[in-house]
Amino acid sequence: MRIRLIASAALLFTSHAVAQPQNALNLIPLPASVQLGDGRLPVDQSFSVAVTGFKDATLERGIHRFVAELSHETGMHLKQKVVDSPNPTLLIHAVHGSERVQRLSEDESYELVISESGAKLTALSPLGILHGLQTVLQLVETTANGFSVPVVTIKDRPRFAWRGLLVDVGRHFIPLDVLKRNLDGMAAVKMNVLHWHLYDNEGFRVGSKRFPRLQDEGSDGLYYTQDEIREFVAYAHDRGIRIVPEFEMPGHSRSLFAGYPELASGPGPYKVEPGGPDAVMDPTRKETYKFIDKFVQEMATLFPDEYFHIGGDEVNGSQWDANPKIQAFIRSHGMKTNQDLQAYFNQRLQKLLSKHHKIMMGWDEVLHPDLPKTVIVQSWRGQQSLATAAQQGYSSLLSFGYYLDLMWPASQHYAVDPMSGAAASLNPEEKSRIIGGEACMWSEWVTPENIDSRIWPRNAAIAERLWSSPEVQNTGSMYTRLDMLSRRLEWLGLTHRSSMVPALYRMAGTSDITALRTLADVVEPVKDYTRMNSLKTVWDFRGPLNRLVDIASPESDQARRLRDVVQTYIGSGYKNQAAEGEIRTRFAAWRDNDARLHPLLEQSFLLNELAPLSEDLSTLAAAGLLALDYLKKSTPSPNAWRVQQLSLVERAKTPKADLLLMVVEPVQQLIERSEGQTQKP
Amino acid sequence: MRIRLIASAALLFTSHAVAQPQNALNLIPLPASVQLGDGRLPVDQSFSVAVTGFKDATLERGIHRFVAELSHETGMHLKQKVVDSPNPTLLIHAVHGSERVQRLSEDESYELVISESGAKLTALSPLGILHGLQTVLQLVETTANGFSVPVVTIKDRPRFAWRGLLVDVGRHFIPLDVLKRNLDGMAAVKMNVLHWHLYDNEGFRVGSKRFPRLQDEGSDGLYYTQDEIREFVAYAHDRGIRIVPEFEMPGHSRSLFAGYPELASGPGPYKVEPGGPDAVMDPTRKETYKFIDKFVQEMATLFPDEYFHIGGDEVNGSQWDANPKIQAFIRSHGMKTNQDLQAYFNQRLQKLLSKHHKIMMGWDEVLHPDLPKTVIVQSWRGQQSLATAAQQGYSSLLSFGYYLDLMWPASQHYAVDPMSGAAASLNPEEKSRIIGGEACMWSEWVTPENIDSRIWPRNAAIAERLWSSPEVQNTGSMYTRLDMLSRRLEWLGLTHRSSMVPALYRMAGTSDITALRTLADVVEPVKDYTRMNSLKTVWDFRGPLNRLVDIASPESDQARRLRDVVQTYIGSGYKNQAAEGEIRTRFAAWRDNDARLHPLLEQSFLLNELAPLSEDLSTLAAAGLLALDYLKKSTPSPNAWRVQQLSLVERAKTPKADLLLMVVEPVQQLIERSEGQTQKP
Repeated sequence: MRIRLIASAALLFTSHAVAQPQNALNLIPLPASVQLGDGRLPVDQSFSVAVTGFKDATLERGIHRFVAELSHETGMHLKQKVVDSPNPTLLIHAVHGSERVQRLSEDESYELVISESGAKLTALSPLGILHGLQTVLQLVETTANGFSVPVVTIKDRPRFAWRGLLVDVGRHFIPLDVLKRNLDGMAAVKMNVLHWHLYDNEGFRVGSKRFPRLQDEGSDGLYYTQDEIREFVAYAHDRGIRIVPEFEMPGHSRSLFAGYPELASGPGPYKVEPGGPDAVMDPTRKETYKFIDKFVQEMATLFPDEYFHIGGDEVNGSQWDANPKIQAFIRSHGMKTNQDLQAYFNQRLQKLLSKHHKIMMGWDEVLHPDLPKTVIVQSWRGQQSLATAAQQGYSSLLSFGYYLDLMWPASQHYAVDPMSGAAASLNPEEKSRIIGGEACMWSEWVTPENIDSRIWPRNAAIAERLWSSPEVQNTGSMYTRLDMLSRRLEWLGLTHRSSMVPALYRMAGTSDITALRTLADVVEPVKDYTRMNSLKTVWDFRGPLNRLVDIASPESDQARRLRDVVQTYIGSGYKNQAAEGEIRTRFAAWRDNDARLHPLLEQSFLLNELAPLSEDLSTLAAAGLLALDYLKKSTPSPNAWRVQQLSLVERAKTPKADLLLMVVEPVQQLIERSEGQTQKP
Repeated sequence: MRIRLIASAALLFTSHAVAQPQNALNLIPLPASVQLGDGRLPVDQSFSVAVTGFKDATLERGIHRFVAELSHETGMHLKQKVVDSPNPTLLIHAVHGSERVQRLSEDESYELVISESGAKLTALSPLGILHGLQTVLQLVETTANGFSVPVVTIKDRPRFAWRGLLVDVGRHFIPLDVLKRNLDGMAAVKMNVLHWHLYDNEGFRVGSKRFPRLQDEGSDGLYYTQDEIREFVAYAHDRGIRIVPEFEMPGHSRSLFAGYPELASGPGPYKVEPGGPDAVMDPTRKETYKFIDKFVQEMATLFPDEYFHIGGDEVNGSQWDANPKIQAFIRSHGMKTNQDLQAYFNQRLQKLLSKHHKIMMGWDEVLHPDLPKTVIVQSWRGQQSLATAAQQGYSSLLSFGYYLDLMWPASQHYAVDPMSGAAASLNPEEKSRIIGGEACMWSEWVTPENIDSRIWPRNAAIAERLWSSPEVQNTGSMYTRLDMLSRRLEWLGLTHRSSMVPALYRMAGTSDITALRTLADVVEPVKDYTRMNSLKTVWDFRGPLNRLVDIASPESDQARRLRDVVQTYIGSGYKNQAAEGEIRTRFAAWRDNDARLHPLLEQSFLLNELAPLSEDLSTLAAAGLLALDYLKKSTPSPNAWRVQQLSLVERAKTPKADLLLMVVEPVQQLIERSEGQTQKP
């Protein structure tokens, strides 16, 4: 095997500080070190796996899943059984077993050496092997000569030990089969923590035996039984994923008071119905701590992970302010503010968790001079709090910038690095306290139907940020690899690509959705929390989620492609004919789309609101075509025309039906450029 | 509620002999009686269900599923709990409970009355209610004013009591989750029997505790455990579906001899590997019957249905011929032929089944003068054997004409009626013995990935044939309703529509599959068993199933649409401009497709074989466009041109890569018609 070193010699496994080269391999996250060789190893029906060294049931199940996935990817029936051969296609060697309960500090590195005659995957434990197997799957390509993987040597390990995804199942219940396929997706991009936000004001989702009114009164009947949770935790463990449960205290817990109103700071009664008070636990009563003690004890039997998240965010002080007993308690204990009271509560909480052998985690509001240094701080309000926590001696992780429900493009998440911003000026010891990050999937607007499309593929960009070298920054490369991954994820049953079609048919109530699809492919849901504005009165998220805003991808591939090709065209001085041709084809289709779509819009109450958007798309496309004509002929466009078109552009920038038309910007560029030609002659 | 009677007054619930009107409702199968009224009942988030009369857990689970499916279909969060209201949206009334083990004779009728203020669904038992709930789901439409169902009165009941689907899990193992979603699909079209072909030469799929070598030696490790089977049977029962297991005896059972060679008529050894002898049980030894006795006893604990299928088809006599002991047995028992020996075997088998309270079923080869009249005969070799069996006093059902693996269009299955052909001349008593039919999904070329696309939506056409009045014959209406159903089935997780995309990406190994999809959408797998010819040596079905023939739909919607629009165009005397425009658009896209697809074809070993097909498509489309020019101008096409084009047409008719190009025929028509114009002037 002749290794063609594509990275510089300085690219050593031991250092992340070296620039990561872009290479042709469709791997995401990019490995720490890749040495691409010449030649390929065929992957055909004779594919076999052998194991030397350590072997256990977890490893065997991992190999079975790998073979099953390889079967899916290739459409070939492959032998599931591990063979006892000295020359298998893939030889796996783990030195020793993984921890029974996966630990944060566990070694996740692996080494993969592929030659033309076979592949060898080595790791300290099955955990590293699992990651390496995902790399093998991503390496498989369809070629003129069959399926194969390239000759390559990969040495890989994560940059951060904590690479998580939070899923909120409180606001909308998400069934376990949906969560399982998302665990499969996480494993595919080497994420290792599912942060399970198990209740919120709107619903309590764990079946407690000790406190059954939690689920009986605190949910609409949709919750996980303890058997289901145990099986789910085992499922995650098999995939190298830790499950960290979050139980919100003292705020965000109205659903908890539905069954146990005596824990709350206000009189109640409490319901999970929307619009009730944003209730908070009463930290002044013994009974509160007795409840927490028993509750944590029960939950500790379900969740073996050493970390336990207590929430602690957005504590609304109004119930504390309104309760004279609580105010008296604050004064009598020498405290000054509600924040002091929360710190008091957190200290007692931390002791209870410690009693049950759990390390406490909380959102960055828990930061307070009195907070024990063992608590892990999760930063969501900004990168400053991450740096502050690290400076003050807390282990901390970043979620600010990784909120998937904000509907940002992948590139925007990708640009956020836990070590950037305020953290950049920390000293090495402080920096070492930053242990990773978590993408967050809050579920106000999320259902089992659309959740995959909100998580994937964007979550993979965050996974790469947390695994790969900080020098891996090429957004173009990221999108290329993200696109390939997105298709691979379909083999895991994820519906992020396929779910749009039936949902559009539901909206259309008719058989041809071509024109609707054309519109749907160039819009995106409004960004940040703009959509909250459309809630007229109370924050009620139980309404139908069947509008286009619920279905449209958070990031339009078509719009990104248009932006790229318009850049190419402009960059070529309006000479690149292929680019011009592609832009014209797209514009022509969009220009004609409104006429096709319009009859449909009137037939369905779900489509009605899309009329102005559809009109904007056609108007803009027509304007774009004219701008192209001017640019092609090097004739300046008339000022009056341009002014008029740019006012249409402005109109099109306004969100409609909670959607943004994503082709506005490149059209605007072309219109504006059509003036610039006047300078030239 | 003002009822607008759209059927004649003679359309009574009690008679199937009255012509079924075509109506605008997208129901499949069409109900026995439909009276459409004016107005609609809204389906919004206040939708509620109440139950009067009989109520049990099965009914409650059925209602929960109904509400969950309605939630899926509408994208609305709906209350799962049954309410205690006098004015629910849907009132359900069952008179009494269903049988613990669902029986063939059980009443399945229901009555659904929908007014503008509410709906009422009535049936004798939950079984009828389940069917009625499926009708409600199909009635939901997206309108300008919201989701709603029409004001209608439906009285419905099945024409045949046995409406089944056979799934062969012997040749290719099909996991239970795949089978479950297909059960959901069956329930949606009111099918009530899953005929589970549980083993064949290539694999034994049930975990036996008494004879563990059956699965250990007779499978590749892929089989169902007894717990899984019990859960699956309960799942089916919840959906009004009986599970009839088939255990092939005495032939088609090589996998059985892998662990128990002493049961075979020849010396062995036996393997499930392909190419082994087509072995047959030895019906002359006591041990054979002892085995069957114990085996049936064990299986009877798993499968509560009163029917038990013993196969009995395609018994290869060569092992019996070659065994002197067996030949001596035949002579010494006064028998003449191997058929006599099989009849002897079947008689003893029937007694053993009867001992375990099972009614025996067999394929039509079991017909023999000595066959007990209690045996049910399943006809696969032709409609004659169905009639013969009925004439001879056997209950019988039809599968001939319903073999889904033959890749016929839905219309071809739809045209086959159990009462047509030889059965048409039976007397009423004989006719009454024909109890229904079964679609058959044999799995030589079927995997978990493509099985949904082989079953759906075509299976629904067979379901309608078996449920609805024989006068329901309008193929155009059937296709319209089939198309709507096909999309609804996606909400059940069926992948018949969505599975093509990832499979095409696998083939292409690149990011743009537009041109490949264009080709894939106009081809169909070769029909009947033509594909067997591509097996070079032994019948080995374990090869990769990742070619376009494995992915392409058995029936091309695009090609059907082309045929229809070409008919419209011709029927209009070449005047219909809309039709002409649509044909031109399609032809133009196809003409240009080969140039787009060609670069891709060279990059992938899986696409290579498609080159001639792609070329044919473009050539034909170009010829079709020219033919349109001649027709439009009323100018006769030159003879030489026509001769040349028709030879291309002939070339395009030859299957390539086991695929047929389905647009050939309409193009041929246009070319031929372009001559006809010469007559006119």
